[in-house]
Amino acid sequence: MRNILIIGAGRSATSLIMYLLEKSGAEDFRLTIGDISKKNAEKITQGHPNATGIELDVFNEDQRKKAIQGADLVISMLPARFHIEAARDCIAFNKHLVTASYVSKEMQALDEEARKKGLVFMNEIGVDPGIDHMSAMQVIDRIRDKGGKMLLFESFTGGLIAPESDNNLWHYKFTWNPRNVVLAGQGGAAEFIQEGTYKYIPYHRLFRRTEFLDIDGFGRFEAYANRNSLKYRSVYGLEDVLTLYRGTMRRVGFSKAWNMFVQLGMTDDSYTIPNSEELSYRQYVNLFLPYSPTDSIELKTRHALKIDQDDLMWYKLLELDIFSAEKMIGLKDATPAKALQKILMDKWTLKQDEKDMIVMYHKFGYELDGKKKQIDSNMVSIGEDQTYTAMAKTVGLPVAMAALRILNKEITTPGVQIPITKEVYEPILKELTTFDIVFHEYQTEYLGYNPDNVSA
Amino acid sequence: MRNILIIGAGRSATSLIMYLLEKSGAEDFRLTIGDISKKNAEKITQGHPNATGIELDVFNEDQRKKAIQGADLVISMLPARFHIEAARDCIAFNKHLVTASYVSKEMQALDEEARKKGLVFMNEIGVDPGIDHMSAMQVIDRIRDKGGKMLLFESFTGGLIAPESDNNLWHYKFTWNPRNVVLAGQGGAAEFIQEGTYKYIPYHRLFRRTEFLDIDGFGRFEAYANRNSLKYRSVYGLEDVLTLYRGTMRRVGFSKAWNMFVQLGMTDDSYTIPNSEELSYRQYVNLFLPYSPTDSIELKTRHALKIDQDDLMWYKLLELDIFSAEKMIGLKDATPAKALQKILMDKWTLKQDEKDMIVMYHKFGYELDGKKKQIDSNMVSIGEDQTYTAMAKTVGLPVAMAALRILNKEITTPGVQIPITKEVYEPILKELTTFDIVFHEYQTEYLGYNPDNVSA
Repeated sequence: MRNILIIGAGRSATSLIMYLLEKSGAEDFRLTIGDISKKNAEKITQGHPNATGIELDVFNEDQRKKAIQGADLVISMLPARFHIEAARDCIAFNKHLVTASYVSKEMQALDEEARKKGLVFMNEIGVDPGIDHMSAMQVIDRIRDKGGKMLLFESFTGGLIAPESDNNLWHYKFTWNPRNVVLAGQGGAAEFIQEGTYKYIPYHRLFRRTEFLDIDGFGRFEAYANRNSLKYRSVYGLEDVLTLYRGTMRRVGFSKAWNMFVQLGMTDDSYTIPNSEELSYRQYVNLFLPYSPTDSIELKTRHALKIDQDDLMWYKLLELDIFSAEKMIGLKDATPAKALQKILMDKWTLKQDEKDMIVMYHKFGYELDGKKKQIDSNMVSIGEDQTYTAMAKTVGLPVAMAALRILNKEITTPGVQIPITKEVYEPILKELTTFDIVFHEYQTEYLGYNPDNVSA
Repeated sequence: MRNILIIGAGRSATSLIMYLLEKSGAEDFRLTIGDISKKNAEKITQGHPNATGIELDVFNEDQRKKAIQGADLVISMLPARFHIEAARDCIAFNKHLVTASYVSKEMQALDEEARKKGLVFMNEIGVDPGIDHMSAMQVIDRIRDKGGKMLLFESFTGGLIAPESDNNLWHYKFTWNPRNVVLAGQGGAAEFIQEGTYKYIPYHRLFRRTEFLDIDGFGRFEAYANRNSLKYRSVYGLEDVLTLYRGTMRRVGFSKAWNMFVQLGMTDDSYTIPNSEELSYRQYVNLFLPYSPTDSIELKTRHALKIDQDDLMWYKLLELDIFSAEKMIGLKDATPAKALQKILMDKWTLKQDEKDMIVMYHKFGYELDGKKKQIDSNMVSIGEDQTYTAMAKTVGLPVAMAALRILNKEITTPGVQIPITKEVYEPILKELTTFDIVFHEYQTEYLGYNPDNVSA
C-alpha cells in the first residue's frame, strides 16, 4: 500500500492531515505522521485507521532514514532550515518531496539529482509562497497566451484577524509566528521597480510608504513593501516589466501605528537590555525616551512621536497597557524586539473562539492589441476555528493536493520545482475553490502608478 | 644609536614625524620611516640627517621583521587592523610599541607577554581616543584625590572646519576619512546612561536627539550620541556614575540636515544600486522617492522630508547640486552611501588654503563635601595648513611624546596600556600646551540632566 510520510505535526499541519485522511480510503494510501513528540503525532491521527503516529526527530539519522525508506512521498512541515536533512534522504531512497518553504540554496543544489532520478521535489506550495505563485501565474500565462505583454505586477498577502473577531484598535492579532511580525521588514531596504525606475525604502520609512487596497465585502486594507520584490522578475519571467512590487497587507492604520515602535527603536533585535526581566512596561518605554527630571513618560512619548491630543494613535498605545508600572517584561536578556513581543502577546493572542483571515491581492497590468489594460484579482479565506485556521487551510491544502497528485503521477515534472506551471496550478487552484479559496477578478483600465489619474 | 621605527607615513603622521625629527638631535636617536611607498617615506624625511625612509609592506614578513629588529621602539600609524602583525614581532624581538588606535582583542591578548618582558605597548594615544582619555582622567583623578564622588561624565569630540574656512551652509567639510563620516552612527542603537537610566537611540533618530554645547570664542556646537558610551564605565572606573554619555560634535544645524540623508536611506551601505555609474545625482535622489507620473523630484523631496518653503534645509540640499541632471555618480556597483560620499566630496573637500579644527568638550559632575558640583572643560585646536592639520597635530603629537618618554624610560609600566595613568597624562598634557593644545576649565553648579533648571 502507498504511504505518505508527514514530518512535523504542528499548527500548520491540521488541514493538510485532515484532507489526506479523508482521501486515504478512496485513493488507497496510508499516512505516517512523524513528530518529535510521539503523543502529538498520535493525537493528530485521531485514531484514523489509515494513519500511524510515530516519534521522529529529524536529526536522529536512524529514525529519519527508516521513516523515509518506508514512504513513497515525504511532506516536510518542519521549519525551512530543517528540510534539507529529509531532502537528501529522499534523493538516496528515491522518494518524492513536498514542502511549503522557499527553495534554499541547499535544496536547489539537489535539482540535477532529483531530475535524473525522476523525483518531484515540490516547494513553495503553501499560501505565500504557494497560492500567490499559482494564482499569479494563472493570470500571467492567460495574458501571454492571448499575445499580451506584461507591464505591471503587484502582489500582496496578509495574515489577519477575521472581521468577526476584529475587536481592537489595531485591527490586528497574532495569527502566526509573533516574532516574524515584530521583525518584519528588517535586514535591509525594501527594493522594487515602479514604471521602470528602481525604488528603495529604508526600514524606518517602510511603514509610512503604504498604499491602499479595497476588497469587495471586506473594505479597505493597506500594504507595505516586502524586501525582495525583484527576485520575482526571473521566477515569473517578468524581466521587462515596468512595475514589480510585493507587499504585506494590514488593516488601515496598522502600519502608521506600528511605525511608532519602529521610530522609538523598540523593534531592534540586535542588543540585549540589562536587567530586562526587572523592567516594567513603563520603564521599558522610558529606555527609548530622553531623560527628564520632571516630565511624564506619557508626555515624552507624545512629544517624541508628535502625537496630538486628538490622535487615535495614543489610544492604540494605551490599549496595550504599554505605560503600566505594574506589568513586567519578565524576560532575561531580552532584546527590545523580544520585550515588545511580550507586551503585544498580552493583547494580540487569539482567544479560543476567534478566527483568522488570509487576504491576497494581485494587480496585473498589460498591453494587448495596442491597448493598456489591467486585471485586479483577490482572495479572502476565513478560518473555521483555532484548529482549522485560514493559515492552516491555505498553507496545508495546496501541499496536500500537490502531494496526492504527485503520488498519483498527475504531476510528474522531475527536479526541484515551484508551482508556476499549468500542470500544477490549474488542477490545484480548481480544487481549492471547493474549499472556498476563490480568486475574484476585475478587469479595469490600466491604472499603473497613477491610480488617482493625477495630471501635472 | 637608538632608533624609532614609524610604520605608515600617511596624512596623520606629519606632525608626529616633524616633532620627532626636531627632537632627534638633542635626544640622540634616529628615525626610520617605513611606508609601502619608498618614495613617500623618503619624501617625508625631508632629507633630515637623522631620518631614513625605507620601503615597508607590513605583510612582507622579511621586510617587517628586519625593520622591527633594527628598532628600539615601533610606532604603527597603519589602519588599526594592521597593527597586530607589528605587535607580534615587537613581542618576539623585545621592542616597545605605540599606536593611536583602540586596543583590539588580539592586541589585548599580548598583555601578559608584554608585561613579562617589560615592554610598554601604549595604544589609544591619539586625539580620540587619546587626548580625550588623558584630559578626562586628569580631572577625574583630581576630583577623586579630593575625596569627590563622580556622578556624571559626558565627553564630546569633533573634527570640523576652522571658522576662517567655514563657508558653506552645512558648516562642515571632510577633514578626515569621508567614508567614516557618511557611515557614522550605523551598526546598532547608541546606548548610554542618564541619571541612572539606560537610554537607547536608534540610528534613524540619532541625528535629531542632539544637545548644544558652547565654547567661549567659538560659539555654539551640537553633539549626537556615539554608539559605545558604556564601555568607558570600566575604563575610567565609573561603575557607579549616574550619567555617562559620549558624543560627536558638529556645528549647529548639521545633524538635522544630515538626518535628511538618513531618512531617505542614502547612507545605507548594505546593497548596491544597479547601473549606479550611469545615474545622475537627480536620478540617484529619485531612487528614494515614490514614483510619480507628474511631480518633480524637488517637490517629492520637500514632501517626503516635510521641508517648508522657508526652510534653510532646502538650500543645504541645493548647495550640494544634489538635483543636478548633469552630474553623474560615475561609480560602478555603488551603495547609496558611496554615491552620497561622491556627491558630498564635490563640495566638502578642503581646498589648499583651508584649515581644519578639532574641538573637545567634557562635563564632570561630582559630589564633594555633600555638595553637587560640575566642571566643564574644553579644548579647540586649529590646523596650520593642509599638512600640519589639527587632526595630524592632535593625533601625532601625543603619540610622539609618549614614544620619546618610553624610549627615555620615563613611561615604564609594562603591558598593553592606554593613557589613563598620571605617569602618562601629566607630562604629555603639559607638553601639549606648548603646542596650543590647551584645556580650559569652568567650575559650575551641578546641572546634571536638567541644565535649563526646569521644574514640574
